[in-house]
Amino acid sequence: MPDPTRSVTQKAGMPPGTLIHIGDVLEKTTRITVIDYNKDCVTEQPVQAIDELLKYKTTDTVTWIHIDGLADIEVVEQIGAIFGIHQLTLEDILHTQQRPKFEEYDDYLYIVLKHLEADDELRLFYEQISILVLDSIVITFKEKSDELFQAILDRIKNSKRRFRSLGADYLAYAIVDTIVDHYFFLMDALDVATTSLEDTLLTSEPTQASLQAIQGYKRELINIKRYVAPTREMITEILHTESGLIEDQTRIYFKDVSDHILHVTESIDSYREVLSSLLDIYISSMSNKMNEVMKVLTVFASIFIPLTFLSAIYGMNFEYMPELKWHWGYPALWGAFIVIAALLLTYFKKKKWF
Amino acid sequence: MPDPTRSVTQKAGMPPGTLIHIGDVLEKTTRITVIDYNKDCVTEQPVQAIDELLKYKTTDTVTWIHIDGLADIEVVEQIGAIFGIHQLTLEDILHTQQRPKFEEYDDYLYIVLKHLEADDELRLFYEQISILVLDSIVITFKEKSDELFQAILDRIKNSKRRFRSLGADYLAYAIVDTIVDHYFFLMDALDVATTSLEDTLLTSEPTQASLQAIQGYKRELINIKRYVAPTREMITEILHTESGLIEDQTRIYFKDVSDHILHVTESIDSYREVLSSLLDIYISSMSNKMNEVMKVLTVFASIFIPLTFLSAIYGMNFEYMPELKWHWGYPALWGAFIVIAALLLTYFKKKKWF
Amino acid sequence: MPDPTRSVTQKAGMPPGTLIHIGDVLEKTTRITVIDYNKDCVTEQPVQAIDELLKYKTTDTVTWIHIDGLADIEVVEQIGAIFGIHQLTLEDILHTQQRPKFEEYDDYLYIVLKHLEADDELRLFYEQISILVLDSIVITFKEKSDELFQAILDRIKNSKRRFRSLGADYLAYAIVDTIVDHYFFLMDALDVATTSLEDTLLTSEPTQASLQAIQGYKRELINIKRYVAPTREMITEILHTESGLIEDQTRIYFKDVSDHILHVTESIDSYREVLSSLLDIYISSMSNKMNEVMKVLTVFASIFIPLTFLSAIYGMNFEYMPELKWHWGYPALWGAFIVIAALLLTYFKKKKWF
Amino acid sequence: MPDPTRSVTQKAGMPPGTLIHIGDVLEKTTRITVIDYNKDCVTEQPVQAIDELLKYKTTDTVTWIHIDGLADIEVVEQIGAIFGIHQLTLEDILHTQQRPKFEEYDDYLYIVLKHLEADDELRLFYEQISILVLDSIVITFKEKSDELFQAILDRIKNSKRRFRSLGADYLAYAIVDTIVDHYFFLMDALDVATTSLEDTLLTSEPTQASLQAIQGYKRELINIKRYVAPTREMITEILHTESGLIEDQTRIYFKDVSDHILHVTESIDSYREVLSSLLDIYISSMSNKMNEVMKVLTVFASIFIPLTFLSAIYGMNFEYMPELKWHWGYPALWGAFIVIAALLLTYFKKKKWF
Amino acid sequence: MPDPTRSVTQKAGMPPGTLIHIGDVLEKTTRITVIDYNKDCVTEQPVQAIDELLKYKTTDTVTWIHIDGLADIEVVEQIGAIFGIHQLTLEDILHTQQRPKFEEYDDYLYIVLKHLEADDELRLFYEQISILVLDSIVITFKEKSDELFQAILDRIKNSKRRFRSLGADYLAYAIVDTIVDHYFFLMDALDVATTSLEDTLLTSEPTQASLQAIQGYKRELINIKRYVAPTREMITEILHTESGLIEDQTRIYFKDVSDHILHVTESIDSYREVLSSLLDIYISSMSNKMNEVMKVLTVFASIFIPLTFLSAIYGMNFEYMPELKWHWGYPALWGAFIVIAALLLTYFKKKKWF
Repeated sequence: MPDPTRSVTQKAGMPPGTLIHIGDVLEKTTRITVIDYNKDCVTEQPVQAIDELLKYKTTDTVTWIHIDGLADIEVVEQIGAIFGIHQLTLEDILHTQQRPKFEEYDDYLYIVLKHLEADDELRLFYEQISILVLDSIVITFKEKSDELFQAILDRIKNSKRRFRSLGADYLAYAIVDTIVDHYFFLMDALDVATTSLEDTLLTSEPTQASLQAIQGYKRELINIKRYVAPTREMITEILHTESGLIEDQTRIYFKDVSDHILHVTESIDSYREVLSSLLDIYISSMSNKMNEVMKVLTVFASIFIPLTFLSAIYGMNFEYMPELKWHWGYPALWGAFIVIAALLLTYFKKKKWF
Repeated sequence: MPDPTRSVTQKAGMPPGTLIHIGDVLEKTTRITVIDYNKDCVTEQPVQAIDELLKYKTTDTVTWIHIDGLADIEVVEQIGAIFGIHQLTLEDILHTQQRPKFEEYDDYLYIVLKHLEADDELRLFYEQISILVLDSIVITFKEKSDELFQAILDRIKNSKRRFRSLGADYLAYAIVDTIVDHYFFLMDALDVATTSLEDTLLTSEPTQASLQAIQGYKRELINIKRYVAPTREMITEILHTESGLIEDQTRIYFKDVSDHILHVTESIDSYREVLSSLLDIYISSMSNKMNEVMKVLTVFASIFIPLTFLSAIYGMNFEYMPELKWHWGYPALWGAFIVIAALLLTYFKKKKWF
Repeated sequence: MPDPTRSVTQKAGMPPGTLIHIGDVLEKTTRITVIDYNKDCVTEQPVQAIDELLKYKTTDTVTWIHIDGLADIEVVEQIGAIFGIHQLTLEDILHTQQRPKFEEYDDYLYIVLKHLEADDELRLFYEQISILVLDSIVITFKEKSDELFQAILDRIKNSKRRFRSLGADYLAYAIVDTIVDHYFFLMDALDVATTSLEDTLLTSEPTQASLQAIQGYKRELINIKRYVAPTREMITEILHTESGLIEDQTRIYFKDVSDHILHVTESIDSYREVLSSLLDIYISSMSNKMNEVMKVLTVFASIFIPLTFLSAIYGMNFEYMPELKWHWGYPALWGAFIVIAALLLTYFKKKKWF
Repeated sequence: MPDPTRSVTQKAGMPPGTLIHIGDVLEKTTRITVIDYNKDCVTEQPVQAIDELLKYKTTDTVTWIHIDGLADIEVVEQIGAIFGIHQLTLEDILHTQQRPKFEEYDDYLYIVLKHLEADDELRLFYEQISILVLDSIVITFKEKSDELFQAILDRIKNSKRRFRSLGADYLAYAIVDTIVDHYFFLMDALDVATTSLEDTLLTSEPTQASLQAIQGYKRELINIKRYVAPTREMITEILHTESGLIEDQTRIYFKDVSDHILHVTESIDSYREVLSSLLDIYISSMSNKMNEVMKVLTVFASIFIPLTFLSAIYGMNFEYMPELKWHWGYPALWGAFIVIAALLLTYFKKKKWF
Repeated sequence: MPDPTRSVTQKAGMPPGTLIHIGDVLEKTTRITVIDYNKDCVTEQPVQAIDELLKYKTTDTVTWIHIDGLADIEVVEQIGAIFGIHQLTLEDILHTQQRPKFEEYDDYLYIVLKHLEADDELRLFYEQISILVLDSIVITFKEKSDELFQAILDRIKNSKRRFRSLGADYLAYAIVDTIVDHYFFLMDALDVATTSLEDTLLTSEPTQASLQAIQGYKRELINIKRYVAPTREMITEILHTESGLIEDQTRIYFKDVSDHILHVTESIDSYREVLSSLLDIYISSMSNKMNEVMKVLTVFASIFIPLTFLSAIYGMNFEYMPELKWHWGYPALWGAFIVIAALLLTYFKKKKWF
C-alpha cells in the first residue's frame, strides 16, 4: 500500500502555491490527447504543443482534454494559465495524496477522485484522477496511462443515442461513473476473500496465516473507506451545487452515481462487521482447539497416572507385602486396572470429552 | 445468499441507459396481468400484447399492471415507452441489485423494495419489487411469480369498505405494506432461532456448530439490515414528498408503514446486540469448560503424582533402606497415602474444584 | 418475556383497518368507568351501555373514560364511532405490540405508552396503555385491570389545589407522568441487581449462573430500551406539537416528564455499560481462576516429577550400580530430594505462584 | 456512591407539585445568608425571618440570597411565594436527584448543577446546587454548608475591578464557573489514578485488586459523565437563551465556562478509552502469565517424563534383559539421560520458552 | 506527556480575569520581534520597549508582532492594553492548556492552536500558539523559541509572488497552515511505528514490550486527537465567520487547511482502528503460543505416560507374573512400546499437533 500521508510531509512548510509533484511518479512521460465532438462529428488526436489547445476555448463543440502522467509539471502550469485555473487547484492536481473532493470556482468545477484497483492478493493500488469541468471543456489528469476510459471513448465514437448531444457535464458524469463503478470490483474481491476465509475458519484449523489475512483485509478496508467515504460527500456536493455548469438533466445521472456510492459504502461497513466477527471466530476457534488439546491431555493423564501409581506400589521392595505372594495378585491387579480405566473412561465419555 | 454486489460488476463500464437484466433470473417467462377497478366494478385479465395496455392510459378507473418475471427485457422497454418512463428508471427495474429507494419524476413515482423470505434454516432469499405510481395507474415488476399479492387482490375484489373508492396511491400503499409486513416473519424466525441458541449456550456444552450458527445469523442480520435500513429512509421520503401523486389521506397510511419499519429496524438492532452477547457467552462458556477440564487434570495429577513418588522411593534398590525391613512399613505407607490424598482432596474441595 | 414481534405476524397480509385484537389477552372482560369532574364536583361511575357516553360529548366538564381490558373489540369500535376516531387509531389500540408514539389528528391526540413492571427476579411484564385526548375528554385503554391509576383518581377526588380546575390535557399529563414514574422502579431493581452481581463477581468465584444473570439482565435492558427510547421521542413530539389540545401551561409539566424520561434513558445507558463491563470482569475472573489452577498443577508436577525420576533411577536393576551399595546412598538421596524440592519451592515462591 | 435513582421512586405516583425533600439529607439545619452589593458598598448578614428578604425585591443593588441545607421545606416554600417561583421549580430544588438543567421562566432563570467531589480513594460525593437568577437577585440553594463559595465572597468584598459593577447575571456566572472549575480536580485525580494503575499493569503482576480498581474507576466515570454531559447542554442553552436576564457582555464569560466544560467532557472520554484499554492490558497480562506458567510446566514435564520412562524400563524385572548385565549399562544410561535432557533443553531454548 | 489538565486546577476558584501564567514554563525570557512589510519593503527587528509597538497601529503596512516565551506576564498585559484585547483573551493566551479555538471579537480574531512534535520514541511535546488577527496586524504568542516560523519569514522576505501584496489574514493563514502541516509528520511517525509493530506481532513472538508499545501509541493517539479534533472545528468556524477581518480571497486558502486537517483526522481514526486490531492480534498470538505449548506438553505426556505405566507393571514384584519369565517378554514389550508410540504419534500428526 502506498502510504497516503508520507509524501504530504515532503511539502510541509513550503509556501502554498508552489507547483511540485508530490507522490510516487507512476508514469514518466506526460501525454495529452484531445477528443472533440458534437452531434455530427468526433475527432481524437494527440497534442504536441500546448498552444494547440487554445483554439478549443472558443469552439462550441464539447472538448475533452486528457492528460496521462503528471511528471511534466510545466504542462499542468501552462494548462492552468490557458484556462484560468487557480493556483491552489493546480497544486492539488499535482499533489496526488488529496482526499476526494469537489470545489466550485467561478469559471470551473474541480473534482478529485481515486481510482482503486486490487491485484489477485487483494493488494490495493491507488491512482488520483482530477477532473476540471469548464463550460464546454472537460480536462482530466490521470497518473497512469491505461485503458480505464477506453469504454467512454468508444461510447462517444459510437454514440447512436444522446451522448454526443449532451454537454460537458454529462461527459464529466460518465467519467465519474466509470471510476465509481470500478469500486464494485473491489467489493467483489472482498466478498470472495472474506467468504473463503470464513469457510476456512469455521471448518478447518485456523492458522497464523488466517490471522494475517484478517488483519490484511482490515487494513485494506480502512484504506478503501478513507477514499470512498469522501467520494460520497463529494457527490452529494455535486448534487447540491448551484453552479450552472451542471445542468438539471445531468443531475439525475449524478443521483444514480450517488446511489452506487452509497451501495459501496454500505458494503464496506458490512465487510468491516464481517471481518470483525471473523476475528471473534478465530479467537473462539483457538479456544476450541485449546480445549480439545487439554481434554486429550487430561484423559490420558487422568487414566494412566492412577494406574501407574498402583503399579508403583507393587514395585516396592518392602519385605512384608502380602499381596505380592498371592497367586492371583497379579491378575487381580490387572482386573483393577481395567475396572478403573473403564470407570474413568465412562466418566469422561459422559462429560463428552472425547 | 445471493451475493448482492457480484452482478453489479457485470455492468461496470457500460454506458448508462443500456437495458440489460442484471442479477439471477428467477423466472424464465414474463407474465402481465391487469387489474382494473373503480367503485362499481373489477376486472382482472392477462395481457398478451402490450398494446392492450394503451387503453388504460385514458380511463379514469384505477389500473394495476402487474409484471411477473423480468426475463423479457422488451416488455420493460415497451412499457417504458408507453407510459413515458425515464431510461434510468427502466435500467433500475432490470438491475435487481438496487438499494431500496424512492424517486420522484415529473409524471410518476418510482419505488424499489426488497421482498425477503427465509427458509427453515434461516437462509434468506431476496427478490426485488419495483413499483411505478402514475396518476391512476400502478405498475409493479416482480422477479418471482408467487402468491405474495393474492391478499391484496382478494381485498380489491371483496372490498366492502373503501379500497375501491381510493386512488392509485392507496393501492401503492397496500403493496408496500404487504411487503413490509412480511419482514415481521423474519423477525419471528430470528427470535425463535436466537432464543433457542441462547438456551443451548447457557445450559449445555457449546460446540463449533453453535459458533457457526451465531456467525450465520450475524451475516443474515447484516444482510437484512442492508435492505431494511434504506427502506426506512425510502418511506420517510414518501412521507415528505410534495408530489401530488400521493394524496394527504393516504399519507397517514404510509405513516403507519413507517412505524412498522421502525419497529423492524429496532428489532434488528436488538438481535444484533443479542447475537453479539451470544458470542461473548460462547467464549465465556468455552473458558468455563476449559477451567473444568483443567481442574480435573490438576486434581488427578496433584494427588497421584506425590503418591507415585512415595511408591517409587520404596521401589529403589538401595542395600541400606531400613524402612523396607520394618514389619509395619507397608501398611504405614498405605496410611500415609490415605492421609495425603485426604488432605489434598480437602484442600481442593475447599477451593471448590470439584 | 412476551415476545414483542411474534404476534405482529398474526396480522401480516391482512387489510389495514381490520379491527382484531393482537397480542396476549391479559384481561378477559372489558370494563368501562367514567370519571367526570370540574372545579365543583366529581362523579365516578361504571358504564354498562356505551350509549351512556354520548352525553359527555357536550358537557363542559372534564371526562375521563377508562377502559380496562381489550377483549371486547366492539367496545373499541363503538367508542371510535361515537368520538370520531380514525380506523387506524382503533387498530393501534387493539394491536398491543405498538411502539410508544404520539399522533396528532384533527380532533384528538393519540398517545401510546408501555407500562413496564418487573417481578422480584427482574422478569419484565409489558402492558400497553393508549390515551386519546379530545377537547375535554380523555379516553384511556388499559390491558390489565389494576391499581396503577388509583393515585390519580385520589388526587382528582381530593384536589385541594388546581387539578380539577385544569383541563383534559393536564389529566393526560398526569396519566403519562404516572406511567413514566414507574420506570424508576425498574431502574432501582436493576441497580440493586447489578451491584449485587458485581460484588459476587469481584469477591467470590464466578459461576455459570453469574453468566446467565448478566445475559438475562442484558436482554431485559435491550427490551426496556426498546420501549423507553421511543417514549422519549414521543414526549418531545408532544412538547413541540402545535395542536391546541395541549395548552401552554400544561406544556411545562410535560417538560418535566421529558426530564424524567431523559433521566431514565441515561440510566439505561449506564447500566448497559455496567453490564458489559461485568461480562469483562467475568471473563477476567475466569482467566484468573484458570491461572490459579494451572499454578497449582505446575507447582505439584514440577516438584514431584523430577523427584520421581530420581527414585526411578535407583529402582533400576542394573547389576553394576555402585550408589546402591553405598551405606549413605539412601539418606543422601533424601537430602537431594529435600534440597531440590526446597529450591523449586523457593523459585515458585519468588514467582508468587502460591 | 449515593444511588442517583433510588430516591426518585420515593415520589413515583405522587401528585406533581407536592413539596417534599427527596434525597439524602446532607445538612440538618437551613441557614440563609444575604450578600447585598453595588459599586459602593457590600453587606453580608444572616437572615432569621424570611420576611426580611422582602425589602431586597425593590432595591437596585445586586442581592445574593444563599440557602445552606434543604431540610426546612418551609423556607423554600416561602421564598417561592415571595419571589414568584413556579411550583415545579420549587419541587426540583428540593428533589436533589435532578439532572443538571437550565429552565427559562418569564421572571427568572433556573439553573441546576451538581458539585462533585472525590475523596482520596476516588469515591465520589454529589451535591445539588440550584441557582435562581432574577432581575437583580440571585438565590442559591446548596445541600451542604461548606467553603465552596468563599472565594466568590472574597472577590465581591475585595472587588477592585468590575465585579461589583456588574449585574446578577455575572454573579450567576461566577457561581457556575466555580462549580465547573472543581470538575478539573476530579480529572486530576483520575489522571493520577489511571496512570499509576497503568504502570502497575504493565510492569508488575496484575491482581484481582487491579481488576477491582479498573471497574471502580469505570463506574465513577459513568457517574461523572451522567452529571457533566447535561451540564454541557445546559451551558449551551444559557448561551443561546434570548432571556434579557443574561446580558450580552456576560455571555462571553459563559462561553468561557462552555470551553471548560467541553475540556472536561473530552477528558472524560479520554479516560474512558484509557480505562477500557487498561482492561485489555489486564486480560493480556493474565494471558501472558498463563503462558509463562504453562511453559514452566511443559519444560519440566517434557524433560522428566521421558527420562522417568527410561528409568522405569530398567526397573523392570524381566529375567532376560541383557542390558542389565552390561558393565557400562548404568553409566551409558546416564549418558542417554544427559543427552536427551540437553537436546530437549536446546529445543525449548530455541523456542524461547525459558 | 505533559498532563493537560493538571495545571488547570491551579486556577480553579480564582477570579476570571486574573493574569497568571498556567502551564510549564518552556522559555524563561520573553522576546518580541516585529516584521513589518508591504509590497515594497520588509523590515525585521527586535523590540526592546513595548511602546515601540504603538507606531504600527496607524501604518498601513502589514505588521507581524511575534512574542517568544510567555514568562513575562507584563508584556502580555501591555500588549493587551495597547491593542485593546479583552481580559479573557489575555488570560487564555497565558493559560497554555487551552483547547484549540477561534473567537471573534469586535476588533480582532483570536485563534489558539497546538504545535505538536514527537521525538524518535513517539513521545509527544505540546506547545500552545496564540494568534491575534487585527486589521493589518498579526500578533503571535509562542511558548518556545524555535525555527518553526522561519520558513514563513523567508517567504515574506523573498516573496516574488503575492505574499507581500496580501493582508494580515493571509499571514494568519500561513501561520495556521504551517502548524497544521506539521501534524503530518506525526502521522508519518505513527505509520512507521504501527507498521513495524504489526510486522513484529504477525511474524515473531509477541512480548510484554509489544503490549506496552500498543498502549503507549494508544495514549498518544488519544492525546493527539484531543488537540486535532477541536482544530478542525476551529477552522470550520474561521471558514464561516462573517468577520470582515478574513477576506473572501483568503477563505479559499483556509478551505485548503480544512482539507488537510480533515485528512489528519481521518488518519487518526484509521490508526486508532489499526491499533485496536493490533491488540486483537496480540491477544490472538498469545493464544496461539499457548496452544503450541499445550500441544507439546500433551504430545509428550500422552505418549510417555502410558509407556511408563507399562514399564511400571513389569517392575512389580509379584511372585506370580508369568510374562517376566518369557524369553521374548522384554523385546516384545519394546515392540509394544514402539507400536503404541507410533500409533499415538500418527494420531497427533493427523490432528496437526506437531
